[in-house]
Amino acid sequence: MPLITVHLIENVFSPEDKVEMITKLTDTMVEIEGEAMRNVTWVKIEEVPEGQWGIGGTALTARMVHSMQDQQATSQG
Amino acid sequence: MPLITVHLIENVFSPEDKVEMITKLTDTMVEIEGEAMRNVTWVKIEEVPEGQWGIGGTALTARMVHSMQDQQATSQG
Amino acid sequence: MPLITVHLIENVFSPEDKVEMITKLTDTMVEIEGEAMRNVTWVKIEEVPEGQWGIGGTALTARMVHSMQDQQATSQG
Amino acid sequence: MPLITVHLIENVFSPEDKVEMITKLTDTMVEIEGEAMRNVTWVKIEEVPEGQWGIGGTALTARMVHSMQDQQATSQG
Amino acid sequence: MPLITVHLIENVFSPEDKVEMITKLTDTMVEIEGEAMRNVTWVKIEEVPEGQWGIGGTALTARMVHSMQDQQATSQG
Amino acid sequence: MPLITVHLIENVFSPEDKVEMITKLTDTMVEIEGEAMRNVTWVKIEEVPEGQWGIGGTALTARMVHSMQDQQATSQG
Repeated sequence: MPLITVHLIENVFSPEDKVEMITKLTDTMVEIEGEAMRNVTWVKIEEVPEGQWGIGGTALTARMVHSMQDQQATSQG
Repeated sequence: MPLITVHLIENVFSPEDKVEMITKLTDTMVEIEGEAMRNVTWVKIEEVPEGQWGIGGTALTARMVHSMQDQQATSQG
Repeated sequence: MPLITVHLIENVFSPEDKVEMITKLTDTMVEIEGEAMRNVTWVKIEEVPEGQWGIGGTALTARMVHSMQDQQATSQG
Repeated sequence: MPLITVHLIENVFSPEDKVEMITKLTDTMVEIEGEAMRNVTWVKIEEVPEGQWGIGGTALTARMVHSMQDQQATSQG
Repeated sequence: MPLITVHLIENVFSPEDKVEMITKLTDTMVEIEGEAMRNVTWVKIEEVPEGQWGIGGTALTARMVHSMQDQQATSQG
Repeated sequence: MPLITVHLIENVFSPEDKVEMITKLTDTMVEIEGEAMRNVTWVKIEEVPEGQWGIGGTALTARMVHSMQDQQATSQG
């Protein structure tokens, strides 16, 4: 029964990232609900094209999201 | 008012299958709710790319789904 | 994989109607996709409280929906 | 927190229309909830391919929607 | 066709606020798409119970959201 | 941007389980996307009443789900 839906912006994450999301989010859910529920734990990833997701009224591109991710990396370096 | 959303994996169903889903799911719903509701009965089909839908942590391809469908056909033959 | 989500307004349909929706929408889907897919065919029904679903800007109550349903019954009588 | 999801049929609206939707729906929401909520007001637009959205069992194309839009313009002229 | 879904946390907005959302979001959408589309413009509001919506891993209560709203009002005073 | 929506059946999980889902699913997502994305990582949990979620056409109750969970615990004991 548990259904996990992940909404992302297109071109931000690689196919490998998305497989990792499916695997790890499922494992996290199974830790909480019990191993018996694994086969009825579904994760689906839906991507929204760049320019079609707004935060505070600003439509985001993948480049803008990558820049958010980099800023942190720099400030930690 | 009734809104039916169908989530599928891409490349599993043909355009004809999808039209059939829209027609038949609407008819089924109208049987229950009454003919008067037909014009406010909406069906939309959203498809998730292959590799972005996991069951039990395994990301599915269309080929894997087709293989599930075939297995049954064989065991019934 | 097929996931069918039905959105309704609360207090329009009885528990029996909702069980019928689950059974019949599943059967309809299985007719198209093949019997092998039955166990991975999920239907969930989500209800929105009265007054929280607007068509054309008018928030609907269950009474308004029932009145739509009755109108048809009368015109057919 | 407020999350607004807009579902459209593909090829009906231009990229400019969609940016306008993000901007104006956010502004409308912020008018009601207060300016403090702007940064946690998200709008995402998801498009369904032509032929995958049915009203009353009829699968719609962008051309059919455009024809609905034009009819009104004419009757107002 | 345009379907607008608004997700909120329960107990943050009054019934009047929610009616206002339905009316004004519909009007905003109709401004962009044309008056002919009004009757096929749907807005539904779905509320998530307090404690079931997390931002950055923190589950929010209505009180926390109200406190965000007040802060702004104060800083503007 | 990442938005995680979890759909559950009501009365299966405790409030503590649900807080744990919000915390751990967020942490899992942040591991993949980077710490900079934490504040724009949202998790919301939506629950469907018992009897309104069908698998293979059978409407599930919380008791049925608990029985699935116990079966596994027993077979592992």
